[in-house]
Amino acid sequence: MGKVVLKFGGTSMGSVERILNAAQIVKEEIAQNNDVAVVVSAMSGTTDSLINLVKSFSNLNSQHELAEYDSIIATGETISAGLMVLALESIGIKATSLQGWQLPIKTNAVHSKAFISDINPSVISTLFQNKIVPVITGFQGINDNNRITTLGRGGSDTTAVAIAASLSADKCDIYTDVDGVYTADPRIIPLASKIEKLTYDEMIEMASLGSKVLQVRSVTIAKEYNVGLNVLSSFSRKSGTSIIKNYDGDMENNNVRGISLVSNEARVSINNIDPENTQKVYEILQDKSITIDIVQISENLLEFNIPNTELDIFLDSLNKTVNNIEINVQKAIVKISLVGMAIKSNPAVMNTIFSEALKCNTKILKLASSEMKISIIVKAEEAEQFVRCLHSAYGLDVTIS
Amino acid sequence: MGKVVLKFGGTSMGSVERILNAAQIVKEEIAQNNDVAVVVSAMSGTTDSLINLVKSFSNLNSQHELAEYDSIIATGETISAGLMVLALESIGIKATSLQGWQLPIKTNAVHSKAFISDINPSVISTLFQNKIVPVITGFQGINDNNRITTLGRGGSDTTAVAIAASLSADKCDIYTDVDGVYTADPRIIPLASKIEKLTYDEMIEMASLGSKVLQVRSVTIAKEYNVGLNVLSSFSRKSGTSIIKNYDGDMENNNVRGISLVSNEARVSINNIDPENTQKVYEILQDKSITIDIVQISENLLEFNIPNTELDIFLDSLNKTVNNIEINVQKAIVKISLVGMAIKSNPAVMNTIFSEALKCNTKILKLASSEMKISIIVKAEEAEQFVRCLHSAYGLDVTIS
Repeated sequence: MGKVVLKFGGTSMGSVERILNAAQIVKEEIAQNNDVAVVVSAMSGTTDSLINLVKSFSNLNSQHELAEYDSIIATGETISAGLMVLALESIGIKATSLQGWQLPIKTNAVHSKAFISDINPSVISTLFQNKIVPVITGFQGINDNNRITTLGRGGSDTTAVAIAASLSADKCDIYTDVDGVYTADPRIIPLASKIEKLTYDEMIEMASLGSKVLQVRSVTIAKEYNVGLNVLSSFSRKSGTSIIKNYDGDMENNNVRGISLVSNEARVSINNIDPENTQKVYEILQDKSITIDIVQISENLLEFNIPNTELDIFLDSLNKTVNNIEINVQKAIVKISLVGMAIKSNPAVMNTIFSEALKCNTKILKLASSEMKISIIVKAEEAEQFVRCLHSAYGLDVTIS
Repeated sequence: MGKVVLKFGGTSMGSVERILNAAQIVKEEIAQNNDVAVVVSAMSGTTDSLINLVKSFSNLNSQHELAEYDSIIATGETISAGLMVLALESIGIKATSLQGWQLPIKTNAVHSKAFISDINPSVISTLFQNKIVPVITGFQGINDNNRITTLGRGGSDTTAVAIAASLSADKCDIYTDVDGVYTADPRIIPLASKIEKLTYDEMIEMASLGSKVLQVRSVTIAKEYNVGLNVLSSFSRKSGTSIIKNYDGDMENNNVRGISLVSNEARVSINNIDPENTQKVYEILQDKSITIDIVQISENLLEFNIPNTELDIFLDSLNKTVNNIEINVQKAIVKISLVGMAIKSNPAVMNTIFSEALKCNTKILKLASSEMKISIIVKAEEAEQFVRCLHSAYGLDVTIS
């Protein structure tokens, strides 16, 4: 007998049949004598159509307008929570829906990307005592002004993990449209294999590197409150990926666990730059909330990766503020990242990068490493082939038995 | 400087352009130095699609399931309130949305057809002081269990009038897709004319007789709290119909004000019925919540009109409970009703019915009268022609100038 949180994403809630399928999963979990709390996303497509409707009226330039945006788009989760309750009742399970404000899930005041400040789990505990399944809207909260807030795209993952943390739940299962986290994007690397276990830290790196399986924030909370997290598919019903604190009895595991590939960034090189102008560049980046990556600074040179979507805004501001510099932009590049606990301290990992580069005729343009991540920049046309080589070299290819 | 409530129905909120048009009406009302509160319905079609979605899961047989139904379908108004705020902001008017629970609009516990118990207008008053337009979701409330309730179809009218009553507002304008209340259905009587003024009591009779312009309950509240009510079109921008307490200086006005036509009822005659079985019939009607009309009882005969939608359920129950009776059902009938203050006490009104019946070769099957309504049952094939005769005879035909 334990406490579990099950979260169903937009695809798992995407139709009448799929909601009924998710309800079956809840039923099976209850049959194992668990108290189950459910967290749901909006039905797939709903949030996007609401956002389009909102944008017919407003560019959402103020917190005040974002408050209305939040109130509008939060309805997607309200609908799916109600439908999930009706689905559960139709198969004989007592349930009741809870919107963010009804729990409440308190957040800070920042509309459209609020942070959870506090969850009161007492309503859930009472429902558990009465054998009623609470079905909680993901993504939504309420701030101190009694206004609806939302947690940003993918925020339902964060709701689920935060609820699990507040309940000291035994596990939090995230049901999504993929059956786990893979060693690489299976659309690019057909031999990518499902990762059975991954540490919180590895998952945080994987998530922030473009693996869209989980919202990064949810993993950070899971790590902080030590929530046992699983990523599974509500369709295939196979075992998924478990995200854990550390590898039992294998503390020195320092293999590469997964490889990600990011192709929507450009490399900016600024020549003839002095410390004063370097500071001006950082002011622009802060002012425009632009996150850069793989920064390299040498005497008169500043280099970094910038998302393609932010490039024009950045260059425009730069040209208005800074003179006498030489800017070079490389667009046809790809950032490949290797993730794994302590891979930096495993010389074999680094060695393999260079031997594979030679073998596969790939030119490494840049390389940067941190404790559990090594990022490599290569030409776009060489990237996929090189990822395939690395994936194979690190023993990540799926074993066909 | 006054306080006004403007209510926009589903058609007035039916598209981006229409919402912007409604926002202009709000702006014009503010330009006349009024404090304006806005009440909105869901965008037309939204509530019906949500109901269809709900019915894929549930027959809504319990209050518990109806609670989820309420939570789901209330989202339609939440969305349109947010969009109205964004529309107002886009034309320079400060506004903020308020859901039923945020005001709050307290209701009793009956889901899907709750009654308003209390409205706290203090949030609205504060917004008025700060020159911010409150945009309130129609249709929604919250009960003592912290659950969303809804007020039944057309409930946004009731919200608007209740808000106006709580504010002691100077007027409540109901914007809908017709430009007022007509003397008859213009689709049947092309010469039907718009009624400029109507008393609360007349409007209550008109509304309950199938003129779907206003929810009856809203008029009852308007009468009780003496709220000045106007029905207008948000498209034509012509003067509409005012619903008032009484006709100033014309207290003995006892003309026919409007004629309605109801064709979805059947006439049930039960012969050989004794008092015991009569009581059983009423038990069935109460048990199934069936409202009947034009009841006539004579020695061994019980007759009444029943909505076609309830007929089978009624007959089914009757056959199971009562024996030795003779049932006759007439389906091809129409109920024509004349409405006007004190028309019963005007002999000319009654006289005209019979003279027109002779003139138009119409057979009056039944007639029943109350203080401000006379209902006549005729054969379906004779109904429309007879309504045209009556409409003309009572001087209701539009004058083409």
